[in-house]
Amino acid sequence: MKKIAVIMGSDSDLPVVEKAITTLKDYGVPCEVHVFSAHRTPDAAAEFAMNARRNGFGAIIAAAGKAAHLAGALAARTTLPIVGIPVKSSNLDGVDALLSTVQMPSGMPVATVAIDGAVNAALLCIEMLAISDSELAAKLDKARADGQAKVLAKNKEIEEKYNG
Amino acid sequence: MKKIAVIMGSDSDLPVVEKAITTLKDYGVPCEVHVFSAHRTPDAAAEFAMNARRNGFGAIIAAAGKAAHLAGALAARTTLPIVGIPVKSSNLDGVDALLSTVQMPSGMPVATVAIDGAVNAALLCIEMLAISDSELAAKLDKARADGQAKVLAKNKEIEEKYNG
Amino acid sequence: MKKIAVIMGSDSDLPVVEKAITTLKDYGVPCEVHVFSAHRTPDAAAEFAMNARRNGFGAIIAAAGKAAHLAGALAARTTLPIVGIPVKSSNLDGVDALLSTVQMPSGMPVATVAIDGAVNAALLCIEMLAISDSELAAKLDKARADGQAKVLAKNKEIEEKYNG
Amino acid sequence: MKKIAVIMGSDSDLPVVEKAITTLKDYGVPCEVHVFSAHRTPDAAAEFAMNARRNGFGAIIAAAGKAAHLAGALAARTTLPIVGIPVKSSNLDGVDALLSTVQMPSGMPVATVAIDGAVNAALLCIEMLAISDSELAAKLDKARADGQAKVLAKNKEIEEKYNG
Amino acid sequence: MKKIAVIMGSDSDLPVVEKAITTLKDYGVPCEVHVFSAHRTPDAAAEFAMNARRNGFGAIIAAAGKAAHLAGALAARTTLPIVGIPVKSSNLDGVDALLSTVQMPSGMPVATVAIDGAVNAALLCIEMLAISDSELAAKLDKARADGQAKVLAKNKEIEEKYNG
Amino acid sequence: MKKIAVIMGSDSDLPVVEKAITTLKDYGVPCEVHVFSAHRTPDAAAEFAMNARRNGFGAIIAAAGKAAHLAGALAARTTLPIVGIPVKSSNLDGVDALLSTVQMPSGMPVATVAIDGAVNAALLCIEMLAISDSELAAKLDKARADGQAKVLAKNKEIEEKYNG
Amino acid sequence: MKKIAVIMGSDSDLPVVEKAITTLKDYGVPCEVHVFSAHRTPDAAAEFAMNARRNGFGAIIAAAGKAAHLAGALAARTTLPIVGIPVKSSNLDGVDALLSTVQMPSGMPVATVAIDGAVNAALLCIEMLAISDSELAAKLDKARADGQAKVLAKNKEIEEKYNG
Amino acid sequence: MKKIAVIMGSDSDLPVVEKAITTLKDYGVPCEVHVFSAHRTPDAAAEFAMNARRNGFGAIIAAAGKAAHLAGALAARTTLPIVGIPVKSSNLDGVDALLSTVQMPSGMPVATVAIDGAVNAALLCIEMLAISDSELAAKLDKARADGQAKVLAKNKEIEEKYNG
Repeated sequence: MKKIAVIMGSDSDLPVVEKAITTLKDYGVPCEVHVFSAHRTPDAAAEFAMNARRNGFGAIIAAAGKAAHLAGALAARTTLPIVGIPVKSSNLDGVDALLSTVQMPSGMPVATVAIDGAVNAALLCIEMLAISDSELAAKLDKARADGQAKVLAKNKEIEEKYNG
Repeated sequence: MKKIAVIMGSDSDLPVVEKAITTLKDYGVPCEVHVFSAHRTPDAAAEFAMNARRNGFGAIIAAAGKAAHLAGALAARTTLPIVGIPVKSSNLDGVDALLSTVQMPSGMPVATVAIDGAVNAALLCIEMLAISDSELAAKLDKARADGQAKVLAKNKEIEEKYNG
Repeated sequence: MKKIAVIMGSDSDLPVVEKAITTLKDYGVPCEVHVFSAHRTPDAAAEFAMNARRNGFGAIIAAAGKAAHLAGALAARTTLPIVGIPVKSSNLDGVDALLSTVQMPSGMPVATVAIDGAVNAALLCIEMLAISDSELAAKLDKARADGQAKVLAKNKEIEEKYNG
Repeated sequence: MKKIAVIMGSDSDLPVVEKAITTLKDYGVPCEVHVFSAHRTPDAAAEFAMNARRNGFGAIIAAAGKAAHLAGALAARTTLPIVGIPVKSSNLDGVDALLSTVQMPSGMPVATVAIDGAVNAALLCIEMLAISDSELAAKLDKARADGQAKVLAKNKEIEEKYNG
Repeated sequence: MKKIAVIMGSDSDLPVVEKAITTLKDYGVPCEVHVFSAHRTPDAAAEFAMNARRNGFGAIIAAAGKAAHLAGALAARTTLPIVGIPVKSSNLDGVDALLSTVQMPSGMPVATVAIDGAVNAALLCIEMLAISDSELAAKLDKARADGQAKVLAKNKEIEEKYNG
Repeated sequence: MKKIAVIMGSDSDLPVVEKAITTLKDYGVPCEVHVFSAHRTPDAAAEFAMNARRNGFGAIIAAAGKAAHLAGALAARTTLPIVGIPVKSSNLDGVDALLSTVQMPSGMPVATVAIDGAVNAALLCIEMLAISDSELAAKLDKARADGQAKVLAKNKEIEEKYNG
Repeated sequence: MKKIAVIMGSDSDLPVVEKAITTLKDYGVPCEVHVFSAHRTPDAAAEFAMNARRNGFGAIIAAAGKAAHLAGALAARTTLPIVGIPVKSSNLDGVDALLSTVQMPSGMPVATVAIDGAVNAALLCIEMLAISDSELAAKLDKARADGQAKVLAKNKEIEEKYNG
Repeated sequence: MKKIAVIMGSDSDLPVVEKAITTLKDYGVPCEVHVFSAHRTPDAAAEFAMNARRNGFGAIIAAAGKAAHLAGALAARTTLPIVGIPVKSSNLDGVDALLSTVQMPSGMPVATVAIDGAVNAALLCIEMLAISDSELAAKLDKARADGQAKVLAKNKEIEEKYNG
């Protein structure tokens, strides 16, 4: 199975990113975690991206805050799908990171998820791998069914409490 | 090869969406185009999504404006990757569509591209298929090289004009 | 009397929604509370909406956060009035939920109240029922008079303190 | 049948408001149109609202732009449901009108629709009357079916063109 | 000397408004404090405004949050200058109150100060009275000189600490 | 009678500012018009403001766009009331000018009107002069009555057309 | 004299950028113009930046729109001062480019000017060179004096027209 | 070596500004710290700026919040480079300060850094001095290398923890 790379622009993004790692592990999808900064270690970031496909990666998750260039910088160096997580910063609620990640120019796609949306970033990568992996697709479907069951259970609980 | 579905919430979104169709065709990726509205034809949208994987689709592009629920509605019915295009509307520059598309809850990923970012939506789907299709990956890499060459040529032209 | 449905997209919305329930009870308006997610349990949500009129409901309150599709998803399945409560989320102060709820396309109305405006959502439903229920209208008028009296009393208190 | 009042804050709002009038007429719902300004003719606005219920009105639509106070001013004088249409102004795309209309304090509900959302404002009023008028409810359901048919036809047309 | 009225839309605005009262008192300008709600006690608000000039008021400060209509509602009933204080609410940082207060239609001016800018609201009223009261003008000038002296002192302190 | 100064930061603001001049003339209030830039001619601006009171001015209108500092710069040099008009610029709809004008620090009030709100800026100054000028106050009241009559006439016209 | 580099992310930015080139020429400051894209030609951009100091450049102007990463990408590769011009794009008025340019992380400064602020970008570079070039400083001071004279002339013209 | 001036609009900005002072000291760049308010002590601010070049300053850092005019006020009085730090205020997350600082009119450049971006403000000034000071340039390059090494070390740590 292809691996997923989880790249964060700074180790301070780890609390957000950890939910992506956990989600990938829950699905048995191999992942590698790195700290590469678009600005502080641009060569390391570029080199990783340029070799990612031949190193067995299927997609790359990039998490960054403020003027979040990481996802775009990786997208510039590979045609693997890049999933961007805009990380909330202290001043602008993550709006700066959202716009810096999602408003990419034509030809350089970044699949952007919600601000701090690390679980969905992981799920998106798993969905990509599952296009040609029916076992993984079945796991995703099962998780959906489980999620649905949980909401139905919560609903029952609340119906009993309020409508009883 | 898996097909890509291009769904628009209203036929008024066609001018935006057409660039996605053209891009897919340029890469020889088979696609199907539909008008399904999350609100006006929710059953058709849901049915399409629920059957999409078994009908040979690999990913779905969903374009919608204003309170853009289409991408999310499709995401709720399939675990295929959904790529959302927020379409600019007359009043709020597409900010409403962007937030309605990208701020999805945990468990229901939508890969969001820029406002009116139809070309990137198509490229993202092609990148997903290319994870396990080295020929397609080569095409993507070639297009990148071509894009690079075009910028370098433009640069040369402008350098000659200004730097003489 | 028709019943009012109070639907929340997630049980985490309960603290906001509870004020709507309390308000309905204060007016003696029968209500039913449910957790239906536009994305996690779309069938349950759709089914509820499609049967709501014949099951004796007069209006539906829908509370959801982030890319808040719940109110719109219910509106797509019934021509009962839908009242949408945009719920404040952790990142964007509820602006995402507000725009996702209020910017509905033509033909699919959602009566949107303020961010976290649960009391007003309930009052709006009561006002709808009171169109053809003069007793209920009288209760609403009385509450207004009481509210007015409270402000006048507060005013008196403050006038005495400051203008004394 | 109860009448619907369509109030605009200025006659310059007429182009937006006319779609509400047309929609009401299409459904055979009697309506009255007025220009009352929250600021220029506050007494006329207040008097109209205070007498609206006894004058046979079931709901009031209020359209205004910029610091749009009209819907709230009417809400302060009646417990009939008020539907607010934020009208787009020349400078701020209607965001000022949207926030001035939707962010009402507890106890004073305004059912807010999209910026310039006049059709939905009318539909919302019709839905309110239809709570206790099954004939009107049937008309709404038929319009939904027609709307659905139109999208399905558009879809067919586009499917034929593109998927041939 | 003319009196200044300090009106708040709700007694919960008192912590903000108190700074205006204190400032007026510091300048020996007589003021009256009231709680009048544009929505809950519109008649009291209107009556106050209509009689304000003949009751010896020179200007009116109005503080309100969310869809802040109070300043505008008073402006509609008097041609005394109205100074609006947009009060920060829990959800939108006061942006809703700012736009609801400042974006008034032509013919109905509201002198808007910063979000929670109660001191400036008071100073603005004092400046208005000082147009024809040279003693008051002298007090304002003196306060400016004092303010300037305070900054110069702070500057000296910091210069000594850092540039020493 | 005190004079009103109308200052614009650039002669390109003249189309906006002219409505203020016209309004002042309509009321017979003497005014002087100047172009002083907070940045290009700061000394001229400062000198004007410092002498304005002794030169017979009662209030100053300041119109500027983008990072609109003019109103604040004048406020820093006089304790006459300053009325700020945020002028819409080409890029940000006047939001930059609005925030630069209204968010003044404590101690330096600027009475801010709507974006491009030149008529209200003039009216505000007239209202200030009218505090101690009952003739001017009567003119303002008459204009209000005229404005009201115009809306009532428009209302009648529209009532006849639609309700006839 | 050190040269100034003017880099645009795409040749479509040329109409904005040309004002920077003209300004530099007006001051006799040598400049070189290039099209380097942070995403399409990242190596060319990086290489240029890494060699810029030794190639005789004193500062670099970078103009880009949407998710504008160019200025940051150059800043990552050199410790020459980088001046960023956020270019207005078709959808979001340049807010996306502004935030992507200005919200840089600690350690990677970008001197950001106004949206489309090309003249100021050039002036900023000239000011930097003028720190150690008194002749250039004198030119800047002269231009300021000229600008001041122009405003004073405009003022005189308008004073004559309006103040007679 | 030229000195850098660090000016804050209020001593309450000191916690933000201190990081700029520390950074300058770390590089051995002489600096002077002052509190000058654009509004409270405009003469002191203007005088400082007008004499700054001849007093040996190379650039000026200006930090201010809300309607942040300080950087622009200094820019109006000198052709030394001005670096503006928009300071986050209690209500609007620093967006008001950002727009008031960055949206300067043509001819009056302010080099704007991120909200509260004091370190980058200092670095920008050091970069300006380093244009003609190769020793300082070497220090900057060394700091970059150190920063890069730190990220690489963090990366290694995280790689070992997660990829082990």
